[in-house]
Amino acid sequence: MSKRPAPPLEPAAGNGLLDRRLFLGAGLAGAALSSAGAAAEPLAVPPWSLAPGAPFNAYGSPSKFEAPAVRKWVPPINPATPGIGASRTPHAMLEGMITPSGLHFERSHAGVPAIDPAQHRLAIHGLVRQPLVFTVEALSRYPMTSRIAFVECGGNSGFLSQPLAQPPGPPPDAQSIHGLLSCSEWTGVKLSTLLDEAGIDPRAHWIYAEGADSAGMSRSIPLAKAMEDTLVCLYQNGERIRPENGYPLRLLVPGYSGNMNVKWLRRIKLVAGPVMTKDETSKYTVLLASGKAWQFVFPLEVKSLITRPSPGAGLKGPGYYEISGMAWSGNGRIKTVEVSADGGASWAPAALAEPILPKAVTRFRMPWNWSGAPAVLQSRAADETGMVQPSRAAMLAERGMRGQYHVNCIQSWGINDKGEAANVFV
Amino acid sequence: MSKRPAPPLEPAAGNGLLDRRLFLGAGLAGAALSSAGAAAEPLAVPPWSLAPGAPFNAYGSPSKFEAPAVRKWVPPINPATPGIGASRTPHAMLEGMITPSGLHFERSHAGVPAIDPAQHRLAIHGLVRQPLVFTVEALSRYPMTSRIAFVECGGNSGFLSQPLAQPPGPPPDAQSIHGLLSCSEWTGVKLSTLLDEAGIDPRAHWIYAEGADSAGMSRSIPLAKAMEDTLVCLYQNGERIRPENGYPLRLLVPGYSGNMNVKWLRRIKLVAGPVMTKDETSKYTVLLASGKAWQFVFPLEVKSLITRPSPGAGLKGPGYYEISGMAWSGNGRIKTVEVSADGGASWAPAALAEPILPKAVTRFRMPWNWSGAPAVLQSRAADETGMVQPSRAAMLAERGMRGQYHVNCIQSWGINDKGEAANVFV
Repeated sequence: MSKRPAPPLEPAAGNGLLDRRLFLGAGLAGAALSSAGAAAEPLAVPPWSLAPGAPFNAYGSPSKFEAPAVRKWVPPINPATPGIGASRTPHAMLEGMITPSGLHFERSHAGVPAIDPAQHRLAIHGLVRQPLVFTVEALSRYPMTSRIAFVECGGNSGFLSQPLAQPPGPPPDAQSIHGLLSCSEWTGVKLSTLLDEAGIDPRAHWIYAEGADSAGMSRSIPLAKAMEDTLVCLYQNGERIRPENGYPLRLLVPGYSGNMNVKWLRRIKLVAGPVMTKDETSKYTVLLASGKAWQFVFPLEVKSLITRPSPGAGLKGPGYYEISGMAWSGNGRIKTVEVSADGGASWAPAALAEPILPKAVTRFRMPWNWSGAPAVLQSRAADETGMVQPSRAAMLAERGMRGQYHVNCIQSWGINDKGEAANVFV
Repeated sequence: MSKRPAPPLEPAAGNGLLDRRLFLGAGLAGAALSSAGAAAEPLAVPPWSLAPGAPFNAYGSPSKFEAPAVRKWVPPINPATPGIGASRTPHAMLEGMITPSGLHFERSHAGVPAIDPAQHRLAIHGLVRQPLVFTVEALSRYPMTSRIAFVECGGNSGFLSQPLAQPPGPPPDAQSIHGLLSCSEWTGVKLSTLLDEAGIDPRAHWIYAEGADSAGMSRSIPLAKAMEDTLVCLYQNGERIRPENGYPLRLLVPGYSGNMNVKWLRRIKLVAGPVMTKDETSKYTVLLASGKAWQFVFPLEVKSLITRPSPGAGLKGPGYYEISGMAWSGNGRIKTVEVSADGGASWAPAALAEPILPKAVTRFRMPWNWSGAPAVLQSRAADETGMVQPSRAAMLAERGMRGQYHVNCIQSWGINDKGEAANVFV
């Protein structure tokens, strides 16, 4: 066991990227990570080892030392409506594929309603044989399905479609640019089960889904998707859904634009065609350079993001680092993620963490020997359908700068000679 | 789409168990679930749909209506040491495979220390070429691995090895009997990476792992396991580990007895043989009927548990229900779970939720048509190594009633004619 071979240190691509197997196989024996110190003397005994600690608590919270790991939001333009807008997930401080529910992004059109589950109802009506009304307790008796899936706002990353000048305020980071993406284990009843029970009229081809918030947030969804894999969720990451994510019921429409995953779900009406709600006409369509728009473009395209290093989570001196990030696609599983440390001149494949699930976040990792010189880090994901993330230039050539939805171009983080990371447009 | 075939309603086993595919394929069309009501008139508009809701919050919490979903604990015998003991996960209120971190069970031998991560150190010493000391920040630079894995106290479910008379106090339920089992996504550095860097002396065959709590909780672990899949974890369910689960560092020893997953990890010493700590000698050995004991039995054997229905989460009248539960094995993946509704006279295979991961919780589900008559529900899991859960009688015949560790026998829930569930010994 003490005779492991030294790992390969040959470069996998330019500017210090190493073979992804370095960190998966033989370990780092002999790599002499500068971050470890030799133990010259016994450890000091800290005060918390000298006295009994805190008693049990009914529902745990993070350590007070993790106070910076919180959602952030831009105060609404109208201070009379503090619940309109979005708060964002602090990706640079997180790891793995699951987003803790307390940090799942929030997008509200009229704040978070305080719904009493005993009073809440879900109606299914319209083009059905028999309209039905469900209590939450009644739904709890139905067969359930669990799956790990991301939810992403259609407007996430929209900053990358904006003009070159960066806006005033704090420098943009992974949270402010890409924080409208989170991933949870969702559990609920297949919508197909409920629609089958109501009996689908052959004239129905879409559903209309409406929330119980005072905005009545609503979207039209193709019936085929409603029958394929849409869930009426009661649970998120094992427990009942949090209020800001739709308590007591939300729709999960895997891979589709965030606000189609209607929160505080109260009504599903079966209809012949889309009903042209505000959020599918004036909003959430993709305006192109030509002035035309893509409407009813639902699956979120393949995308990836390096979370470490990233702005606010920089490097501490030259040497070995692990580049860590997330990739996801509304069309299925992630197939590959490539990483570049030289602004796209050369690329090497990253390691993907198992399990690689469809329409879920996949964590990727890549070893890097940072020389201390400026660098530009990028990641480029491809999904099982063959779609690949475009460069920002290619995306803008097609869409111009008015298309702030479905932005899935490559993110570039510049690293300066101090190890600080910042958004750069390349 | 409106012409789906009626699902098969033939029994799969006695007392109302139905084919597991009923709930996975065609849906319940025509099954006339009594829990759904016909919609005779428009939904009433509730007050929360008439006014703006709450603004954003930095770190979310469950709805106030979910207040019963909390950890519970038996007050310690000695009130001067309120942090000694265990709090338990409320399984009957949860779903899916992930346990929310706020509800992950706690087992503390001297309470929860309030560790400042900037001051914390991890030492690796003993039979190594070069002793090393790591700060938490230094460890953050190392390559990481994520996996979903359960942690289970070796004493979980020990109640089932007790005498037939049930103790005074609240009736035993899934939380009080089996609540020392939880499942998270863990992310950390492979211990093999750190041991390789320290350089393993060929005389080393075990490691000694010690926590920074004032109990200095410590266990001996075979070096082979330390090198195979043991992680020094920094993250749980995406965020830094919660204080009660080992912040800032805990060992994850997948599938091995809970307290070997040393929390608040401060020291790993490489040694020639086990050091015989308190928690591997006077505790956590399996006492047999013969008076001999199994010591150093590490992997937790295959086990399962029906969470719905279960005590406190009973049935509301005859009709269709989904039986839902969890299965896990410290030896690998779950292969099958069978369910019985007639106290073990007949069994039918349950559906297993994907992904089925090694040494992780797998959710199983089974449709059931409850007649309204008394019933005894059981689940029996088998893992990929071929191990099958024993009956309680078979376990007691081998071990007697003094072996309160590694209890993995079949749990029986009696259902009375009111639909109430209770532990029964059959």
